[in-house]
Amino acid sequence: MAFKNISKLVAILIFTVGILVSCKEQSPNSNMDQAISNEGHPNLILTKKGVSHIRQKLGQVPLFDKSLEAAKQEVDLEIGLEIEVPIPKDFSGGYTHERHKRNFLMLQKAGVLYQILNEEKYAKYVKDMLMEYEAMYKTLPVHPQTRSYARGKLFWQCLNDSNWLVYVSQAYDCIYDYLSQEERDKLENNLFRPFADFISIENPQFYNRVHNHSTWGNAAVGMIGLVMGDEDLIHRALYGIENDGLDPDAKDNDGGFIKDKEGRAGFLANLEEPFSPDGYYTEGPYYQRYAMYPFLIFAEALDNVKPELKIFEHKDGVLLKSVHALLQLSDADGEFFPLNDGQKGMSYYSRELVTAVDIAYYYGGKNPELLSIAEKQDQVLLDDTGFAVALGVNDGAIEPFVKKSINLSDGPNGNQGGVGVLRTDTVELVFKYAAQGSSHGHYDKLSFSLYDDGEEVIQDYGLARFVNIEQKGGGNYLKENTTWAKQSIAHNTIIQNETSHFEAKYEVGSKFHSDLYFFNIENPNVQIVSAKEQNAYPGTDMHRTMAIIKDEDFERPYVMDIMRVNSETKNQYDLPYYFIGQVVKTNFSYNAPKLLKPLGDKNGYQHLYLEGEGKPSGSNTMLSWLNNERFYTLTSATDNKDELLFTRIGANDPEFNLRREAALIMRRKNADNTIFASIIETHGGYSPVSELALNSNSNVSEIKVIYNNAAYTALSMTTVNDKTKLFILANEEASAQTKHNLEINGKNYEWTGPYHLIKTD
Amino acid sequence: MAFKNISKLVAILIFTVGILVSCKEQSPNSNMDQAISNEGHPNLILTKKGVSHIRQKLGQVPLFDKSLEAAKQEVDLEIGLEIEVPIPKDFSGGYTHERHKRNFLMLQKAGVLYQILNEEKYAKYVKDMLMEYEAMYKTLPVHPQTRSYARGKLFWQCLNDSNWLVYVSQAYDCIYDYLSQEERDKLENNLFRPFADFISIENPQFYNRVHNHSTWGNAAVGMIGLVMGDEDLIHRALYGIENDGLDPDAKDNDGGFIKDKEGRAGFLANLEEPFSPDGYYTEGPYYQRYAMYPFLIFAEALDNVKPELKIFEHKDGVLLKSVHALLQLSDADGEFFPLNDGQKGMSYYSRELVTAVDIAYYYGGKNPELLSIAEKQDQVLLDDTGFAVALGVNDGAIEPFVKKSINLSDGPNGNQGGVGVLRTDTVELVFKYAAQGSSHGHYDKLSFSLYDDGEEVIQDYGLARFVNIEQKGGGNYLKENTTWAKQSIAHNTIIQNETSHFEAKYEVGSKFHSDLYFFNIENPNVQIVSAKEQNAYPGTDMHRTMAIIKDEDFERPYVMDIMRVNSETKNQYDLPYYFIGQVVKTNFSYNAPKLLKPLGDKNGYQHLYLEGEGKPSGSNTMLSWLNNERFYTLTSATDNKDELLFTRIGANDPEFNLRREAALIMRRKNADNTIFASIIETHGGYSPVSELALNSNSNVSEIKVIYNNAAYTALSMTTVNDKTKLFILANEEASAQTKHNLEINGKNYEWTGPYHLIKTD
Repeated sequence: MAFKNISKLVAILIFTVGILVSCKEQSPNSNMDQAISNEGHPNLILTKKGVSHIRQKLGQVPLFDKSLEAAKQEVDLEIGLEIEVPIPKDFSGGYTHERHKRNFLMLQKAGVLYQILNEEKYAKYVKDMLMEYEAMYKTLPVHPQTRSYARGKLFWQCLNDSNWLVYVSQAYDCIYDYLSQEERDKLENNLFRPFADFISIENPQFYNRVHNHSTWGNAAVGMIGLVMGDEDLIHRALYGIENDGLDPDAKDNDGGFIKDKEGRAGFLANLEEPFSPDGYYTEGPYYQRYAMYPFLIFAEALDNVKPELKIFEHKDGVLLKSVHALLQLSDADGEFFPLNDGQKGMSYYSRELVTAVDIAYYYGGKNPELLSIAEKQDQVLLDDTGFAVALGVNDGAIEPFVKKSINLSDGPNGNQGGVGVLRTDTVELVFKYAAQGSSHGHYDKLSFSLYDDGEEVIQDYGLARFVNIEQKGGGNYLKENTTWAKQSIAHNTIIQNETSHFEAKYEVGSKFHSDLYFFNIENPNVQIVSAKEQNAYPGTDMHRTMAIIKDEDFERPYVMDIMRVNSETKNQYDLPYYFIGQVVKTNFSYNAPKLLKPLGDKNGYQHLYLEGEGKPSGSNTMLSWLNNERFYTLTSATDNKDELLFTRIGANDPEFNLRREAALIMRRKNADNTIFASIIETHGGYSPVSELALNSNSNVSEIKVIYNNAAYTALSMTTVNDKTKLFILANEEASAQTKHNLEINGKNYEWTGPYHLIKTD
Repeated sequence: MAFKNISKLVAILIFTVGILVSCKEQSPNSNMDQAISNEGHPNLILTKKGVSHIRQKLGQVPLFDKSLEAAKQEVDLEIGLEIEVPIPKDFSGGYTHERHKRNFLMLQKAGVLYQILNEEKYAKYVKDMLMEYEAMYKTLPVHPQTRSYARGKLFWQCLNDSNWLVYVSQAYDCIYDYLSQEERDKLENNLFRPFADFISIENPQFYNRVHNHSTWGNAAVGMIGLVMGDEDLIHRALYGIENDGLDPDAKDNDGGFIKDKEGRAGFLANLEEPFSPDGYYTEGPYYQRYAMYPFLIFAEALDNVKPELKIFEHKDGVLLKSVHALLQLSDADGEFFPLNDGQKGMSYYSRELVTAVDIAYYYGGKNPELLSIAEKQDQVLLDDTGFAVALGVNDGAIEPFVKKSINLSDGPNGNQGGVGVLRTDTVELVFKYAAQGSSHGHYDKLSFSLYDDGEEVIQDYGLARFVNIEQKGGGNYLKENTTWAKQSIAHNTIIQNETSHFEAKYEVGSKFHSDLYFFNIENPNVQIVSAKEQNAYPGTDMHRTMAIIKDEDFERPYVMDIMRVNSETKNQYDLPYYFIGQVVKTNFSYNAPKLLKPLGDKNGYQHLYLEGEGKPSGSNTMLSWLNNERFYTLTSATDNKDELLFTRIGANDPEFNLRREAALIMRRKNADNTIFASIIETHGGYSPVSELALNSNSNVSEIKVIYNNAAYTALSMTTVNDKTKLFILANEEASAQTKHNLEINGKNYEWTGPYHLIKTD
């Protein structure tokens, strides 16, 4: 406590001295008195009133002071160096790319520091660098790298140019009053307006879409428009360009369609389209995180300058809901589930989520649970929202952010499938039955991934890309993203005849989505979700039901997985489980080939080596593995004609772009109506320090599908101590009110609702 | 602070109530007054005086109270269950094994709790269980599992039976006075004396060795002897069995010789032989950790009962030195370097190291640096030593335990090579030039491993075993430990003609050791070690020099690696680098085969798949990889006829016993006198949260061997900014005083000592 007070005192002293010095050095252009009035600039993200409030409390709100000090240290270091505005040349990860990226981040921070600390050196730094950009931009050609469908000028793609303008608009707003009219005219006429026009009118294929790229473009144009008071730009930002002349069949680099099916464009359309009413963003959490920044920062700016738009109330408050949805789509460590294209490790510690949490707190009724996330983030935005969060943390009004089981609908109207997350104790199951997810979508209907204490147990591969690591394909998507990561076989779902869902055709996949059958988390011991897919393979219906079940006869929660397939034709079905860890035990024998060959030659199969090939030893197939000091066991009801394939990712991957990770694939041939049923246990533990292995064996002695027709499916499970459980699923009637009556093996069962789980021993 | 005081108060209350209750429940056998005198029992580990002191301070020393409370909770839970003493049946990991193991741990703790808390229930629990063992042991045959060279009775090997007796002796000492003479006679005649005889006289092949197994046996026999006051057993413990009749060629399950070359046996011989004067234990840190417990606990007992032996002063205080050596052989996270057979993850958090640290603190002059380890361990022994540590932590007399570069000699007289650890900033390099390391030794002369911040950068594989996980080969050594882990190709060292050092023959390898050339850490910027090996391949001399160098032209420390080979014949040389992480970039092209085949058919090569095969593109070969958010680059001076092989562990491993990890192997054919020279950089960083890749490229533009003959070797290195460094090594004169004078490319260099590192730009 004593130490904390000393820190506070030091902070107060530092800031007092800082303010005294800055008053002394005050430039004629800056006017401290004027800055306290509520008109003029800044008014975009910082406001005059907010700045005045923040200045009064400096040194009294540790989390804010800490973030301010961090920004100050970073910017002071940069100010000590020479300003560098190099001629653009490189891809992401390369020097000119990273330099321009660092520049816009520094400009934004320097602008804020100028306002809060009122030291002229920050304004001068922003002005000097902007003038260098102005000098260069006037004659700057399009970027020399030709890979993008929408090349930028400072960067290889308009997307990054838009990032630049979103940040630089804020810097410009902060020093607006510091500049003379002449200086402003120069910057606006030679840099900002041409820049805004370039990324919009000159690149409608980038700007006029419903896509995260366009959201950045819209926000960039809108924010500079708000600073300049340019209604044309603001209108263009909100509603897009009319008559863009775009080819309706054109696609971007990721294979996504450029033109929206209904011709919508602009920020409001982007807000409408990709978010479901629950706040789920169709591309998945990784891109939602990326898109959140322009969505929220532009919304904050709009709320400051054009409060009459009531942007945060748009679509029933979807922006604020989306922050909540995004936080729920992270594992126990705050890392986002890598649905669709997602780089693993991205988390709510990212700067975008600092923005999201602070803005959601400020505009969303000051939910104290958000403060616990902010406390973990250990930084806040340097604006009114961040200040409010820091104050909240300081006042100790924090409540834990509770992650629960949650079902998030997909699609603008919430009727295009969704994502269900089941949580019990430390176990989290992510079940995807969503729409295609735009050009970043993967072909994995009814797939799942499983986590325990934030560690992957059954993984979703995520994307094949090393974002911003230039040595790996310029930091961009690798070809393995298409040939492997997007393919169905890269996921824990059914693959028919070694062909991906929708034949991995974006045009087809984006027409369809899976459908929720039911999601029920009423019983805390049975968290369950069930969904159907009828279009991935025409003529074949898939129906998967997954649950996390807590049961006194089990040490820890277990997962139940029932995948029913009904087809008009006989097919081969593969169902992979990408388990993470070391094989501990199997109950079947298999041959390990002397030479490793790829499992197939296309659709992702060319990237899998076959490491082992076996047959079930009985009616159940069991695999136990060890990961992160815990044991896991998959037990599946299998047919003695099934093939069991141990595979490893890495074939046809000469540049080591893929991780060498394993799967067990269950393969069933010549099947039309069939069912895969499994139990996944989390159990026991092993410590390499105590060297004790606890409860390392499965608790399941047998599982059996004892009933399966169009109307009902029943799964029986017996534990090693001869406790038997029966799970019955109504396949065609999801209503919670419907009464059911079914005779199985001469015994009658009656229940209400779509499922029935009982002990029968 | 307030909270801390409340906890203290609560603890005091709990213990006060405990003592009151226990006084009330006091049995006629126990006598509290008597327990305060300094004669009689306990006197083995706990002492009457110590117990009295501890009782007085209960509730006042949080770290001790916490450890006591943890033991109490654990034992109370067990006491609530039925005592189980099953008929022995299983291997380690199996039920009866784990039950008997748990029993001896509980007995020892219950004994201690009885003494400290003076509650009869603990004494009764010990007595009851011991009587069950007595009832069973009388007629117990040898263990049914036949795998061991020395089968136990309670366990499959005498080793575990000895573990039992080491712990149970302590329990017996604690309740000695609680038992009647008749009860003691019963236990001693039917259980303890036959037990001690069985593991010694009836199993001399186990007991009469210089080996960690025997250390356990000796301690077991000695400790029960000390409790029973049986001088025969004590003598047998200290000096072994005379005329053991052992076959001098017999071997144990690990392939180690049973009979000591010089016929020594007993605890004192075991103290003499495996420890070097520096305290290095020849089997390596993993087994040193395992052996430390019987060494130190028996030493503590001897010091209590027979202080005249001055056991802690034996061999110049080697026992205490060995604790220091062991702590220095751990990485930044406290995990032991897996030299020879070592299971990764074992660390100074193990219970053996709690014992080691507490005893070393108490008997070794109360070094305050040990308190910082004890604080991390967060538990202490429940005896005088642990109490002293807890008091020290409480008094705040803690100093950080500083890990430094250290050279540890191997061999009883310190002249059989050794292990050098170099440390600079977060980088740690472990260089092995030791003796064979007994039956747990690997064939890897002059090998190394590299760590950064406690994470492996270039790994040593460690053992091939899942200790105590019964599904994996009964928790015992897997056959891959012999076919892979011990082989030279599994390590980062030179392999000649695809044959392991000493042809992997234990009889040959144990005759030899490498020799230190020099170890110099005087210059904090150049931590360097150099050693020679002349016997691994008859007719071939190897000389490796490794250094961690801090240089202002580099962002972070880099490693220099110079391996000189001189042979009488032309051979093929392989030098692998088992890098951990994802390949980021190479400067050479290679073919990735469509099918993966094993690289060879024996000597470990049968376990490597060939994933890529290439040639150097110029005079330098470069590989960059990414691991744990950092970049690493290996740059090697290569010949254009060299072959570059990307390999992956996992061939001929049908049970998935091996980890699928990678290496780059440099292969040079038809070479007699040759040199491999490399620089390994640690540089930059990547965060999946910020997605920034910093300094991801190597700083080395070229390395070149510019001079190499019998007397001198010179390596030149140029950075990307054209800074050139020259390193000259005197190959035949290691003296720090010798002056050298050498002309290279027309330029004269003068220096003193075995190496010279200068800037030449």
